Amino acid sequence: MEKIYRDSLELHRKHHGKLEVKSKVPIENKTDLSLAYTPGVGQVSTEIGKNADRAYEYTLKSNTIAVVSDGSAILGLGNLGAEAAIPVMEGKAVLFKRFAGVDAFPICLATQDTEAIIETVKRIAPVFGGINLEDIAAPRCFEIERRLMKELPIPVMHDDQHGTAVVVLAGLMNALKVRGASGKNTRIVVGGAGSAGIAVTKLLIRYGYTDIIICDSKGAIHHNRKDLILEKEKLKNTTNPRRLEGTLVEVIAGADVFIGVSKGGTLNEAMVRSMNAKPIVFALANPIPEIMPDRAIAAGAFIVATGRSDFSNQMNNVLAFPGIFRGALDNGIRQFTEAMFLNAAERLAACVTEPDANLILPSVFDRKVVPAIAKAIK
Amino acid sequence: MEKIYRDSLELHRKHHGKLEVKSKVPIENKTDLSLAYTPGVGQVSTEIGKNADRAYEYTLKSNTIAVVSDGSAILGLGNLGAEAAIPVMEGKAVLFKRFAGVDAFPICLATQDTEAIIETVKRIAPVFGGINLEDIAAPRCFEIERRLMKELPIPVMHDDQHGTAVVVLAGLMNALKVRGASGKNTRIVVGGAGSAGIAVTKLLIRYGYTDIIICDSKGAIHHNRKDLILEKEKLKNTTNPRRLEGTLVEVIAGADVFIGVSKGGTLNEAMVRSMNAKPIVFALANPIPEIMPDRAIAAGAFIVATGRSDFSNQMNNVLAFPGIFRGALDNGIRQFTEAMFLNAAERLAACVTEPDANLILPSVFDRKVVPAIAKAIK
Repeated sequence: MEKIYRDSLELHRKHHGKLEVKSKVPIENKTDLSLAYTPGVGQVSTEIGKNADRAYEYTLKSNTIAVVSDGSAILGLGNLGAEAAIPVMEGKAVLFKRFAGVDAFPICLATQDTEAIIETVKRIAPVFGGINLEDIAAPRCFEIERRLMKELPIPVMHDDQHGTAVVVLAGLMNALKVRGASGKNTRIVVGGAGSAGIAVTKLLIRYGYTDIIICDSKGAIHHNRKDLILEKEKLKNTTNPRRLEGTLVEVIAGADVFIGVSKGGTLNEAMVRSMNAKPIVFALANPIPEIMPDRAIAAGAFIVATGRSDFSNQMNNVLAFPGIFRGALDNGIRQFTEAMFLNAAERLAACVTEPDANLILPSVFDRKVVPAIAKAIK
Repeated sequence: MEKIYRDSLELHRKHHGKLEVKSKVPIENKTDLSLAYTPGVGQVSTEIGKNADRAYEYTLKSNTIAVVSDGSAILGLGNLGAEAAIPVMEGKAVLFKRFAGVDAFPICLATQDTEAIIETVKRIAPVFGGINLEDIAAPRCFEIERRLMKELPIPVMHDDQHGTAVVVLAGLMNALKVRGASGKNTRIVVGGAGSAGIAVTKLLIRYGYTDIIICDSKGAIHHNRKDLILEKEKLKNTTNPRRLEGTLVEVIAGADVFIGVSKGGTLNEAMVRSMNAKPIVFALANPIPEIMPDRAIAAGAFIVATGRSDFSNQMNNVLAFPGIFRGALDNGIRQFTEAMFLNAAERLAACVTEPDANLILPSVFDRKVVPAIAKAIK
């Protein structure tokens, strides 16, 4: 086992996880007790009982979100179940607090049924000011997000979709700026049509790109495909304007940009060489990218990004989700929109004042990032 | 509005509630990130995926419980709904951490349907090492607790029942010790047959008391009553051996002990005077006791306890629940039993080495309390 994995197991074992719940008020004497608990708290309940919205004024709801998973698509590891999702959701919660001061609590569900998940999240929603859905398999993630957005009065976002889309679009803006001579007809191929691939494609279309081909395991999505789930079906008419059919190997030829959100090793040197001059390669599969950066560069890639922290151009959702929920909570947002995500991508891209081939996105530790994105969510 | 209520509102407003979620690990550089989040966390998920019980080793589950309410019986205030329950559940969580180092998170449910509550708690259970049910109205609280105890592999306790019962029994042990000449045929009248009254009665029976009369709003529960819900029906044959019928005013005459868990003002001086010599009066309704201590004493009460912090002999659940869950988590308990609660009451009583009429229970700030009770839960 690699050292990083051994060390991570040891870190988790030593601390028994990564999160704790702490009091913000002192309890040192009977007066403290009667203010924080009975009888004082009774008055707070009475006030909220008259108007439930006052929970935002008097309780943790104003700064607390749930990070909800059913454990069906944990990282790139697959369906490992609710308990196995806990360390990842704890990790997200740690990042929410560290980067944006958002209190986040992991909710890992012992069900993978779409209706049961929707119902459960609705029932536990009163405590939370927002819901971050995470690592829920496609296609149920789309229905769950759509319904919860409609049926809950608090903002709901599936981060694997929109967090990824915001970061990818921001990185692409800067990458194309560095490469020069880009236009809205830049040829883009998205490899992978899960939740991330579909959301990235939709946001790129919304931004104005007109020549995107998205590939699932069977190849390009095109007008003749009959085997598509609803979310892919919707993309038949808004992508692939040149009506290309065939596998990724075939449709990537001549592309300016490859965005990989599928699995490790799906891109080889020959495919990179078949792309247009100065190709941009985002190989975002985790932990093994679609192609390793050194091999991509050797094959002529002009700019390479991965999800990993050990190469330059790390393209990770953590650049987006803390600021998105910080903005939602601060600005009293009850529903996210694609316009907010576009705006967030533009502001994230602008955090890098002089992008170059090895610097298309800011560091996750750049303090400008969260406030910049939070301003976009309104 | 009384000052304590104004101050409590101000405290809650100033801090936006009382709880925050904090990281136990530092995130200061890319190495920290790769240990707490990707890629390191993937190995932790993989290990738990092979054996879900390892969540106790690697995640917050080992020290974290849910404080669950449906907002249907908030303190003595009634059915104010989920949002109004948040400040009380936050308060409980604050006390769990302050007194026992237990991480507790409030879950306030937007449903008051028995089956829906059971189902929801089961679905969110993977993250938690225990479930504290709170402020859920009778009779549904009984069914919810019974089913969750049976259907979940983690300890479940309705605190309004068992926390109260442990503290009342402990206080009664010491009160009778101070009063002297007590036996298992001490005459006890319980005023109130909600969740607390029923649980107190059951634990006193289990401890060995043979002459208990429990009264609901219609008076004593006796062998001829035909209007009883299941939990009260079960008490018909185990209480009231002298088969007394009538209201509280009638059956309290000659009693040694009155335990009030109903509502303010239901006991008057004449009723206290009608009791046996040196009567013990526990007037636990909150915030207004069944009778104010000065009036009870004036009418001849030998020992008086209330739920309030501004009189001596405060009889509050906070003496019990932190230690009960501390013990359950430390000792790997998967189910609470009445034997544990009896043992806990005995150990709680023993925390007062020399009880007197104004000191039948230890202070909630007495550091001996939590370890003593935790030892009983095994």
